[in-house]
Amino acid sequence: MRIIVCGMGVVGQSFLKLLLTSSTSLYKNYGIKPRVVACIDSKGIAYSPIGLDLEKVLAIKEKPSANLSDYGGAKLHSKSYIEEIDAEVFLELTPTNLSTAEPGLTHIISALRSKKNVITVNKGPLALSFSSLIELADYNNVMFRFSGTVGGGTPVLEFAKHCLKGDKITSFTGILNGTTNYILTRMADGLPFDEALKDAKEKGYAETNPSLDIDGDDAAAKLVIMANWIMGYKVTLRDVDKIGISNINQDEFSKATSSGKSIKLIAKCDKNELYVKPIPISKDDPIYVNGTLNAVTFRSEHSGEQTIIGKGAGGMETASSILRDLIEIKENMTNYQLN
Amino acid sequence: MRIIVCGMGVVGQSFLKLLLTSSTSLYKNYGIKPRVVACIDSKGIAYSPIGLDLEKVLAIKEKPSANLSDYGGAKLHSKSYIEEIDAEVFLELTPTNLSTAEPGLTHIISALRSKKNVITVNKGPLALSFSSLIELADYNNVMFRFSGTVGGGTPVLEFAKHCLKGDKITSFTGILNGTTNYILTRMADGLPFDEALKDAKEKGYAETNPSLDIDGDDAAAKLVIMANWIMGYKVTLRDVDKIGISNINQDEFSKATSSGKSIKLIAKCDKNELYVKPIPISKDDPIYVNGTLNAVTFRSEHSGEQTIIGKGAGGMETASSILRDLIEIKENMTNYQLN
Repeated sequence: MRIIVCGMGVVGQSFLKLLLTSSTSLYKNYGIKPRVVACIDSKGIAYSPIGLDLEKVLAIKEKPSANLSDYGGAKLHSKSYIEEIDAEVFLELTPTNLSTAEPGLTHIISALRSKKNVITVNKGPLALSFSSLIELADYNNVMFRFSGTVGGGTPVLEFAKHCLKGDKITSFTGILNGTTNYILTRMADGLPFDEALKDAKEKGYAETNPSLDIDGDDAAAKLVIMANWIMGYKVTLRDVDKIGISNINQDEFSKATSSGKSIKLIAKCDKNELYVKPIPISKDDPIYVNGTLNAVTFRSEHSGEQTIIGKGAGGMETASSILRDLIEIKENMTNYQLN
Repeated sequence: MRIIVCGMGVVGQSFLKLLLTSSTSLYKNYGIKPRVVACIDSKGIAYSPIGLDLEKVLAIKEKPSANLSDYGGAKLHSKSYIEEIDAEVFLELTPTNLSTAEPGLTHIISALRSKKNVITVNKGPLALSFSSLIELADYNNVMFRFSGTVGGGTPVLEFAKHCLKGDKITSFTGILNGTTNYILTRMADGLPFDEALKDAKEKGYAETNPSLDIDGDDAAAKLVIMANWIMGYKVTLRDVDKIGISNINQDEFSKATSSGKSIKLIAKCDKNELYVKPIPISKDDPIYVNGTLNAVTFRSEHSGEQTIIGKGAGGMETASSILRDLIEIKENMTNYQLN
């Protein structure tokens, strides 16, 4: 199974490390022999049709002046390298951009058009162009998977799709962003917003420019992915009714506390509503989780309410979601060949 | 797909009702045309090789003096009717018996030997003879599924098996019994054990003879099923270190409360331990749930900790788990035919 890895940040590097440690069990349990033929970042490409030495790639990435082209592998002949390189799977791991979805969107389209199965953890292309990407994958008879876009290592999407078969999910409610949940947890302890945000930055939970989290965009992007994939809606980021957390004050927390609640940034999807808003939630509610945890409650017709809780981020956790997608693609390829 | 339903209590009847309402979507989404050819309870059998009228069966069960033989279907010729009746799937839904596992164990063995796929929600046979039943199913080249034995409608077993592919679960901790969790929740409110138990009985959460729950046997049976199925252990009920909840007093609750905890009946499985015990749990722990809820936290090598929470019981919820198993069997049969 030949793989192209595009985007070599924390998740990309964690994925290579995970392959190094799990290659034996991948072959034994799933018959997968992964061969990474190209690693791409914004500066260069390491390419080898017979498979890259992953330890060598990781060593290059550890140098501050790293350039993957230093790998000294095979040469590429065209600028449209995503089409040129032969591979079964393309991993799109570049950073999320919720304005234009680029460069991820162009990468994914190129890969799908050249009949490569695609796995991404990049929310941008899905938040802005979900339906057309699914259609493009179907048209080219390849799989498009994105487990890591929601919940990091926590299999929120798989749970909804695979574990509730035969039932119909009618709505879901969740805490989909760990950074804002951490900030709100600290605010519930009495810290004002600015100090809680500063603390989140110091702990590495919030980016230098935290607006994607604070304004609710990250949660809204995940909500859009879930609404499309799980509920079959055709919505984009523009359809979400969205309020961030920067205007909440201590008075609101005091009021919530007095009735056994606390304020959480809640994403909700049902027949009538699609929103991300700070809302008081009962401390007895299973989705009431603190710190950087994420939680989602699904309501279904026959099997009642189910909640799934886990860390929403982390390099290795997200890399493990890519591995799950890879196994699903392999199983699908095998069935297809047999049929 | 011809089905035998053995055991016509709440779950069996809920399953027939679920089939009545979901037959269109089952065919449309999964290509399943279920045909219940026999319903069996302790008093009699309704049998029709062309498929029973489920509404007529349900109407018979609603009469206090009900006898399924009143259905007036086809005649059976031998006493070993489980072998005699032609069917692809046998549902074993008789009550759990943790001493001898009967009559469920004999039913399941008969069904597997006559090459029927088996679905059960009966914990007894699994708690006492897990490995040999799995081997018997493998030997006869049929599937044996039991999603409803743990978590009711909450897909705990499927989550562990399907949603964490490519990763390895190293341990799990859970609240696996809703009745005791309700009693402990009421005791945390200040009620003594006897009053909390009385309240649970009045609400219909506890049986007239509640020892299976109170003594931890029900939770231990579920723990055994999970340890075998998820972790690949070969253990039975006798291997569980088990303490019930009847000896907990209010002092222990006060002590727990003073450190932000409360006492829960915890089932745990890791490399060194297999136990069911009342233990103080932090109110910040995701498995800290109240009322009749169940919760399980799985720890895995790469994707961190994940918790799944849901109602552990309910006729319709458990019936929905049977439907999931049925869909899995159908998918497996289809792949098998194609290969």
